[in-house]
Amino acid sequence: MIVILKPGTLPEKKEHLISWLESQKLTVHISDGEDYTVLGLVGDTGHIDVELLQSLDIVNSVKTVSEPFKQCNRKFRPDDTVVSVGGAKIGGGNFSIMAGPCSVESLDQILSVAQSVKEAGANILRGGAFKPRTSPYAFQGLKGEGLALLKEAKKATGLPIVSEIMNVNTLDLFEDVDIIQVGARNCQNFDLLQELGHLRKPILLKRGPANSLKELLMSAEYIMAGGNEDVILCERGIRTFETATRNTLDLSAVPALRDLTHLPIVIDPSHATGNSRFVPSMALAAAAAGADGLMIEVHNDPMHALCDGAQSLTPDEFSALAKKIAAVRQAVLA
Amino acid sequence: MIVILKPGTLPEKKEHLISWLESQKLTVHISDGEDYTVLGLVGDTGHIDVELLQSLDIVNSVKTVSEPFKQCNRKFRPDDTVVSVGGAKIGGGNFSIMAGPCSVESLDQILSVAQSVKEAGANILRGGAFKPRTSPYAFQGLKGEGLALLKEAKKATGLPIVSEIMNVNTLDLFEDVDIIQVGARNCQNFDLLQELGHLRKPILLKRGPANSLKELLMSAEYIMAGGNEDVILCERGIRTFETATRNTLDLSAVPALRDLTHLPIVIDPSHATGNSRFVPSMALAAAAAGADGLMIEVHNDPMHALCDGAQSLTPDEFSALAKKIAAVRQAVLA
Amino acid sequence: MIVILKPGTLPEKKEHLISWLESQKLTVHISDGEDYTVLGLVGDTGHIDVELLQSLDIVNSVKTVSEPFKQCNRKFRPDDTVVSVGGAKIGGGNFSIMAGPCSVESLDQILSVAQSVKEAGANILRGGAFKPRTSPYAFQGLKGEGLALLKEAKKATGLPIVSEIMNVNTLDLFEDVDIIQVGARNCQNFDLLQELGHLRKPILLKRGPANSLKELLMSAEYIMAGGNEDVILCERGIRTFETATRNTLDLSAVPALRDLTHLPIVIDPSHATGNSRFVPSMALAAAAAGADGLMIEVHNDPMHALCDGAQSLTPDEFSALAKKIAAVRQAVLA
Amino acid sequence: MIVILKPGTLPEKKEHLISWLESQKLTVHISDGEDYTVLGLVGDTGHIDVELLQSLDIVNSVKTVSEPFKQCNRKFRPDDTVVSVGGAKIGGGNFSIMAGPCSVESLDQILSVAQSVKEAGANILRGGAFKPRTSPYAFQGLKGEGLALLKEAKKATGLPIVSEIMNVNTLDLFEDVDIIQVGARNCQNFDLLQELGHLRKPILLKRGPANSLKELLMSAEYIMAGGNEDVILCERGIRTFETATRNTLDLSAVPALRDLTHLPIVIDPSHATGNSRFVPSMALAAAAAGADGLMIEVHNDPMHALCDGAQSLTPDEFSALAKKIAAVRQAVLA
Repeated sequence: MIVILKPGTLPEKKEHLISWLESQKLTVHISDGEDYTVLGLVGDTGHIDVELLQSLDIVNSVKTVSEPFKQCNRKFRPDDTVVSVGGAKIGGGNFSIMAGPCSVESLDQILSVAQSVKEAGANILRGGAFKPRTSPYAFQGLKGEGLALLKEAKKATGLPIVSEIMNVNTLDLFEDVDIIQVGARNCQNFDLLQELGHLRKPILLKRGPANSLKELLMSAEYIMAGGNEDVILCERGIRTFETATRNTLDLSAVPALRDLTHLPIVIDPSHATGNSRFVPSMALAAAAAGADGLMIEVHNDPMHALCDGAQSLTPDEFSALAKKIAAVRQAVLA
Repeated sequence: MIVILKPGTLPEKKEHLISWLESQKLTVHISDGEDYTVLGLVGDTGHIDVELLQSLDIVNSVKTVSEPFKQCNRKFRPDDTVVSVGGAKIGGGNFSIMAGPCSVESLDQILSVAQSVKEAGANILRGGAFKPRTSPYAFQGLKGEGLALLKEAKKATGLPIVSEIMNVNTLDLFEDVDIIQVGARNCQNFDLLQELGHLRKPILLKRGPANSLKELLMSAEYIMAGGNEDVILCERGIRTFETATRNTLDLSAVPALRDLTHLPIVIDPSHATGNSRFVPSMALAAAAAGADGLMIEVHNDPMHALCDGAQSLTPDEFSALAKKIAAVRQAVLA
Repeated sequence: MIVILKPGTLPEKKEHLISWLESQKLTVHISDGEDYTVLGLVGDTGHIDVELLQSLDIVNSVKTVSEPFKQCNRKFRPDDTVVSVGGAKIGGGNFSIMAGPCSVESLDQILSVAQSVKEAGANILRGGAFKPRTSPYAFQGLKGEGLALLKEAKKATGLPIVSEIMNVNTLDLFEDVDIIQVGARNCQNFDLLQELGHLRKPILLKRGPANSLKELLMSAEYIMAGGNEDVILCERGIRTFETATRNTLDLSAVPALRDLTHLPIVIDPSHATGNSRFVPSMALAAAAAGADGLMIEVHNDPMHALCDGAQSLTPDEFSALAKKIAAVRQAVLA
Repeated sequence: MIVILKPGTLPEKKEHLISWLESQKLTVHISDGEDYTVLGLVGDTGHIDVELLQSLDIVNSVKTVSEPFKQCNRKFRPDDTVVSVGGAKIGGGNFSIMAGPCSVESLDQILSVAQSVKEAGANILRGGAFKPRTSPYAFQGLKGEGLALLKEAKKATGLPIVSEIMNVNTLDLFEDVDIIQVGARNCQNFDLLQELGHLRKPILLKRGPANSLKELLMSAEYIMAGGNEDVILCERGIRTFETATRNTLDLSAVPALRDLTHLPIVIDPSHATGNSRFVPSMALAAAAAGADGLMIEVHNDPMHALCDGAQSLTPDEFSALAKKIAAVRQAVLA
């Protein structure tokens, strides 16, 4: 950590700060420049409050040298993490498509969609049972019953399944769910993350709409700190001033995260755009950008979907898209 | 709800949409303009998915007439809600200052701070026991023990107390806590909000850093839908591109929320700015803007605070500030 | 335009507003609902101030039916605009790559880069002569001399050229420049836009980092209102809270603009990301998303570039990328 | 400047970078830590491209020690700048209110408003003649004629006047204008700023809706670099995701800028909120926060204002507000 003092700092104030830093078991290297004095702190700075230092009236600014995330940091583990689930692999060059309805609505619906997306080339089935909704008056999902129907579809098609958890108290219901999804609004629900760190099951962690990439990695770190190393990161749009799309898909997260972490990176164009007309182009873009997978909403009857029909593709649209995705992947890898 | 069709929409597509809307038990008023056809939907549109309609290729845009929040809507309840707790009142012209340390650290610390802030004019004591921290390696609060110490300080000073809950499973520990705080990161933790709706105890609901005012009100609606009407709204900074402050304090939330809702509005300048040097001016600004209260961090030894020392005032600074706040309140009300 | 009145609006206030609207030569259709009264305004509402209506205390909200942009609106001109310049075509299925250095630095440099990018497949040469720089102390471009060198490179390679204008007073210097670029910071420099509307020469209009897509279209409208119909829109990153990239590339602008306008859409991944390591993946993503072209910075010696070396590709990197772009285009169109 | 290398950087790559840095006339201090190597650069780093260094594959991050703004930096000039104009002073404890209509519309209008605001306590008259409008079809101001009418009002009332310039070519018309305003959209119109730097006349520089405080200061630096030291900074709302107000007023800019610069800071609550109902509370908040002045729109007939009627106060509302502002100022200073 590096602390830059303001020009004209009184020597006694400087000495006071240095003694305090030394009392925190740090070695302080002092380098006096023309205008500024720079203090280099050596030792374990993990317990030092950067913002506190920054707020001192003699301090101009504080710079950290190392990132606060360790386990998910590519610098300390250069090889890609590959998550295996059912027959599917995600990361390390393996590409997965997770597809299915926003909400599980009935056995017929989920079986029919599952069959279609499998035929079209999806290798993981998604389906929501616990639905976080902005309004308390909106449909909140079939909950336990929804998970049971999803498991039926897993049995019928052999596809591994992914579904969202909202509350640690429902963890028992997720026993046969292959990947547990943490929704964007729970990206910093630290109690939930900690609990999921004790599992040995892949977690799909969605980036919160106001979370920086570094915060997303700190949330992954919460899970990994508990010993669960199978974390899949998912970008699904961030909040900006633009209203033409529901959120703004931050596709440059793919190369930026690739630099920072060894964890696989999946893109959800359905929630990002909120509009099925924009999903195909953004799915193809994600594949071209080098994402490790996609999560796409597909519904057999979007006009009657109980939630998020606007962003769902029909099975036919999905099938056409999946073919193009494969072609783009090949073009990029060639 | 109003649906505007694109110019050149084919009559059969228009008819198809109108029949579908009628099948949803809505009456449709059709008004053909020069370029656009406007459909006015009469009836209960609460179950209609606005984004779905918007995504149809014949639809130009969809406009909603009524707000989705009911219970907290000033239009249906014009009089200010006044929350009473201990001797303190918040809302309806009553002003409260909640002050205390970010984290409860020891009995000595919390007793000393509590005594100081009471003398300076605070009428509610704040203190964190469960601390949401971005890093899994940072101090996470004294948890149950912290709440016990906070209750000691309540006994000693008579001040009602407010503290943050992170997890429904710890609700038992909050029995003697006068106001339960929902932190910014849990503003859309709907399961938690729903649970708190079953209590009969004031809830301080912090706005999430990426939540619009309307989303904040929808979250309040989750609590009120359960029958708990004592919700206090708290603005504590939103996420923007500016990095000179930790977040950007959106003080215009005070008059904007005043228009929309009868619930009391409190400002937290400490978390918004993240810098104690900026807290006094923002606290005074909030009082001048007509907020119903303030939440301010005070620590007897900010340099050694276990968390958020950067944004804490010393008891002396707080005392000087409290006097000015009273003077500003008087100037504005005169 | 639709005006929704608040519940409980006094009849005399309602009448007062209606008379005022009628005095503005509008016909007012009144529809009284259970809670709200809805006024439908028929006639030319172009001169009505939406925000003024919105601010009246009896008004709940105001909704506009038609978009304020006309000439660039796809609803009134369904066919794609195709911009032709030199041998290159942009839009309507034609794809262009504009490549070259951020700044023209010397004759050797621009000739060498121009030759390389032409061989690699670029069909338009870019090069900055007037450089908007955040700091007054930074290199501001070679100005007139830079344009002269760029024209030399045009003569040598036959490539049409594009360069940025910052000031109407330098317009004379742009006579042989094939496409005039309006930089992101000048996206709402309305005097400049108006002046360019009088030319009969293609304008590349970059989206401002805080401009919505609708504002970008209004700026295009400024140019088209003067009779210049050859406007190329360029997305180059918007300002968000994320700092891992210089700006956030909003790639969903491609399908979203496609819906709204017939003008061609080009992506600049170099300025958006500010980092050459992220440029290839974002360029491929843009091609996959269906953009009409790319603008990419290429420098023969990025380490010594006088500006924006960080985001420049070497000629070899560009050449490899151009091959992949062609492959992705084919995969998507197949 | 400090450059942090990644763990595992090859010695030859490190050496190569160090030689290059030395070839740039910098002295390099090398400090090898456990994981990271830190290079401290001593000498004039003003010409080094931070983003270029950051993009090198061996570089983890780059930190700058000194700010790029010099002339407006409080560190090098601790005393407040006081701008004097007519009888009014801004900065250094002096408070000014600039009030008047968004647009000058007629002699009657501007005389009437000028008289009212003077009586109510404003000491500078504002009035727009050149109006930047998002739409080319909207009223663009009376231009030269508007300035002439404004000068009439100056003669009649003795109030100094402030008005916005959009184009260097109209500079002649501003000869008797006391303060020239640079609008938010021109905050980074560097050619305009440079030209204004050659004047010896106060410039009111509005922050662009997407400009950070540091960028605002760099724009002020453009003016000051030309020798014009009378720059007044104006915060008028930044662009965020919130739509309840037109922009989000960033009031913490007051204490944050106070730390960074000696220039006076003025707040414009009218443009920030876009709604006259929100203006009084935000004006009072600005006074309480310690701003050096306010810019407030006042119109004798907001319902018929040719532009921005929504945000204008009536003369009576302004007069009541001005009294409260004075009271708040006194409360804060006491």
